[in-house]
Amino acid sequence: MAEHRISISEEPVESWDGRLELDPRFGADVRFRGVVRELENGRRLEGIEYSAYKPMALRQLEQLCETMVAEQPDHRVLIHHRLGFVAIGEPSILIHLQAPHSKEAYALCEEYLRRIKTSVPIWKGPVYLD
Amino acid sequence: MAEHRISISEEPVESWDGRLELDPRFGADVRFRGVVRELENGRRLEGIEYSAYKPMALRQLEQLCETMVAEQPDHRVLIHHRLGFVAIGEPSILIHLQAPHSKEAYALCEEYLRRIKTSVPIWKGPVYLD
Repeated sequence: MAEHRISISEEPVESWDGRLELDPRFGADVRFRGVVRELENGRRLEGIEYSAYKPMALRQLEQLCETMVAEQPDHRVLIHHRLGFVAIGEPSILIHLQAPHSKEAYALCEEYLRRIKTSVPIWKGPVYLD
Repeated sequence: MAEHRISISEEPVESWDGRLELDPRFGADVRFRGVVRELENGRRLEGIEYSAYKPMALRQLEQLCETMVAEQPDHRVLIHHRLGFVAIGEPSILIHLQAPHSKEAYALCEEYLRRIKTSVPIWKGPVYLD
């Protein structure tokens, strides 16, 4: 049985962490946090400002999850993407995923991230230090 | 700069979670928890009893980490493996790893797990329900 929960909001990633309980069906529990790095295109950053038209971004993310689950039913996932300003060293996205084995869990996490980047309209505005 | 911290003990995985702080050098923060599944060889489990000669297991794990770090310096990792009885649905291992990008972070996690399974002498004693 596949399940998914998604969120796109100003809430920090921490507030969505820990909401996916462990389950004896799933031997692999993988949590990915994407962290704002200190450099972007070789320039020092203060952080990144994320913005989106929320109803559209949520619809796209929901559709993406439904497609993933149809393609590979045996997993469950929780995804949260932050909006607003995220300072360097802070996480902007959480993908918490469970699957029977580690190999497929990593592959699924990576594929969720790839599809989010390519199909969910969230804009990144880098805020440079200098 | 690579760093690693390792532990093999009766302590639950939760007590080692959260000890690797986020860092703006590392864009990918991946936490893997290996969970005891409800079935082993088609039989229902109550849990798994893990045992080891600790000094030897720690030495092997330490060596494994040094080798990984020499091969691929740009990451850091925290690894904890539980000993004693672990019930189904509970985690027996934690691999918390940070690297600049997600792709290499997943590959490193998977490689740590593979090498731990093949080279660290920790014995699994399945406890069956029936």
